[in-house]
Amino acid sequence: MKKVRIALLGLGNVGIGVCIILYSNRKEIMKRSGYEVEIAKILVRDKNKDRDVYIPDGVLTTDFNDILNDDSIKVVVEVMGGIQPSKDYILKCMDKKKHIVTANKMLLATNGDELFQKAESNGVMLQYEASVAGGIPIINGIEESLTANKIKELYGIVNGTTNYILTKMQLDKMDFDTALKQAQEKGYAEADPTSDIEGFDAQYKLAILSSLAFGTKINIDNVYREGITKISSIDIKYAKKFNMVVKMLAIAKDHFGRLELRVHPTMIPNDHPLANVYDSFNAIFIKGNAVGDLMFYGRGAGSLPTGSAVVSDIIAILRKNVDSQSSLPALKNNLWDRKIDDIGKSKGKFYIRITVEDQSGALGKITTIFGKYSISIRSVIQKGEKNSKGGVNIVLITHNTCKEKIDCAVKEINNLESVIAINNIIRIEDFK
Amino acid sequence: MKKVRIALLGLGNVGIGVCIILYSNRKEIMKRSGYEVEIAKILVRDKNKDRDVYIPDGVLTTDFNDILNDDSIKVVVEVMGGIQPSKDYILKCMDKKKHIVTANKMLLATNGDELFQKAESNGVMLQYEASVAGGIPIINGIEESLTANKIKELYGIVNGTTNYILTKMQLDKMDFDTALKQAQEKGYAEADPTSDIEGFDAQYKLAILSSLAFGTKINIDNVYREGITKISSIDIKYAKKFNMVVKMLAIAKDHFGRLELRVHPTMIPNDHPLANVYDSFNAIFIKGNAVGDLMFYGRGAGSLPTGSAVVSDIIAILRKNVDSQSSLPALKNNLWDRKIDDIGKSKGKFYIRITVEDQSGALGKITTIFGKYSISIRSVIQKGEKNSKGGVNIVLITHNTCKEKIDCAVKEINNLESVIAINNIIRIEDFK
Repeated sequence: MKKVRIALLGLGNVGIGVCIILYSNRKEIMKRSGYEVEIAKILVRDKNKDRDVYIPDGVLTTDFNDILNDDSIKVVVEVMGGIQPSKDYILKCMDKKKHIVTANKMLLATNGDELFQKAESNGVMLQYEASVAGGIPIINGIEESLTANKIKELYGIVNGTTNYILTKMQLDKMDFDTALKQAQEKGYAEADPTSDIEGFDAQYKLAILSSLAFGTKINIDNVYREGITKISSIDIKYAKKFNMVVKMLAIAKDHFGRLELRVHPTMIPNDHPLANVYDSFNAIFIKGNAVGDLMFYGRGAGSLPTGSAVVSDIIAILRKNVDSQSSLPALKNNLWDRKIDDIGKSKGKFYIRITVEDQSGALGKITTIFGKYSISIRSVIQKGEKNSKGGVNIVLITHNTCKEKIDCAVKEINNLESVIAINNIIRIEDFK
Repeated sequence: MKKVRIALLGLGNVGIGVCIILYSNRKEIMKRSGYEVEIAKILVRDKNKDRDVYIPDGVLTTDFNDILNDDSIKVVVEVMGGIQPSKDYILKCMDKKKHIVTANKMLLATNGDELFQKAESNGVMLQYEASVAGGIPIINGIEESLTANKIKELYGIVNGTTNYILTKMQLDKMDFDTALKQAQEKGYAEADPTSDIEGFDAQYKLAILSSLAFGTKINIDNVYREGITKISSIDIKYAKKFNMVVKMLAIAKDHFGRLELRVHPTMIPNDHPLANVYDSFNAIFIKGNAVGDLMFYGRGAGSLPTGSAVVSDIIAILRKNVDSQSSLPALKNNLWDRKIDDIGKSKGKFYIRITVEDQSGALGKITTIFGKYSISIRSVIQKGEKNSKGGVNIVLITHNTCKEKIDCAVKEINNLESVIAINNIIRIEDFK
């Protein structure tokens, strides 16, 4: 059996998962890859920290050069996260003709282009299945299995933390703060949950996915982003009245070459497959012009699921012959030059919840303003009882319109004397 | 741009889909594969038949030798179905060093071993994504993305016809015959529906999937098979009472090297992801020891979805360099020698519906027999009203037991004087 020596940069949650899988599924991996994989070195900050995994003596190191300068190490797995020093380490390793596996969504979403070019110029592979949706093989799915398709639309529940929070709000009637606290207690949310609940994490992942799905470079700043912090239990109750649920979606659509990219909480029909994705599970729903509707569902995070994606990437490199620097797959993100539409132009239906003073004529004034912007209203719910702000709730669902019209109309409505607050505006996707 | 000439054997539903995709997504396919794909020849029975797709002059042929002896044709796509002459044609093409893409589940499930050996000895690729679950990339998913895992369990809704029928019975309260008739009218079921409703189709697909998932040769005769013809609306109503639905599942489990393979209607919890797979959609749910729960969902049949899988296979061959006969992936079905357990040994919970004469003591006699075989009962429903057979229904749900015990007990129960009929025995999967 041929042997291959690999190194890990980092030994956190994912790194430990990689070690466990490489040890416990050793025989399968040997048979499937044709190689016996040896973890030669692992870069850590503290060699003496107590860890939940057995690491043989001499493997841990605090010096990156031990890995960089060891020519017998052919594959380097970056599971440190963050932009630096991860980026420098990866670039240096590629210069030394080492193949790279990374789980680093932030780095790929912001510096992917430079990394892919460096990989190409050095004839090494850069694998990144674990960077999006943990164990779900969505990168390989798009890269290898949907190649016959024009991907027209992509909808992802790609952040487990927000899906967990929204699930608890929906099924267990928790409010946002309680659900967030429980997510933190369960380890699904960080002490500082900003990256998840404000949608940065999903934004990175959407940039990576759409870059691959549409074969183009994506500037992360062109991906519209909105978090879930404004979603209240009231919105979720109203959604239910309309047979919908609220999910945090990463959405990409191809309008004959122009792209629409956005991350935001979204109301979707409760009988759609994505509506039944609960807790910290992830799912990516794709419409291809040949394959039709397709969904991948699974664990979007966690030590072993993410480790599964990393180790599959290692095996993919070994199968393509780790020693060869030839006939590697071409770059996928520079096939086309795509324009990304301004978010204001994006079309859809909207849910708008407004608190007004309890006086006759308030609804009339509001609908007049919508009429002025040619926004037609599909349904209205006006409640008799006063809410906690001393006003009454009006909830409207619009027909298809574009976001900039909604923004203008809502601004004008907010200036009405009878309007106490615009509580929330949530986009609706009906997948039609 | 490099050019490659391919040929199709057959131009039915799937063949037409392949042609449409190759024409309409031409530019994407060129960019992704690096090749301009030309359909050089298509083998048909009748050149003059009117078809729903444009085929240039000179492409259709009724003579297989036009394809076999044309050395410029590098890839042959078999979409005729059936064992013969498909098998001969494929073997002959491989002898001429042509790569093969096939959608033929029956041929692969029964003769896969011979075909894979021939491919290996000739250094050609044999791709078969379209043979299971149409457009869903489950073959590539297992072969490329789950390589880091021991796959422990696999549950597939892999037959669209039976899923359509069971969906109509469940959601629209149709009886079996009406649902089957509607499936036939919609083109989901053949005029002779035996292969679908008796589970042969699912049996083929399970043999292919488990051969790949467990890296072993599967003799189709060792895959237990049971159709859905005995499922009645009454069973579906009872399932609902127990918060379950009835789905036709293809099930594979790995018990530390021993395999359990079975295809049969199954009651599953109504909140399981597979329970929400409706109509003619397919889905495969997998438990891997690293990745955890994973599900692939999509269109299991149809011209374009199946064509999507076929064309992706063509592109995979082109990417691996169609002209090279080296470094092709190794055979995956001979990694291990696995024993397949007798179906009698398989464990689980069972739903049993019995009609008894309306007399006291009937239930007592039945439970006494179950007790004799150490089968414990989780729930019993006994209805007061008489059913159409003039008796009353008793429905039992057992705790975990093995099938051979159930078979023995039921045989004895059937001999009881008070028992009019054993109406149905349906296995339960709770995925625990």
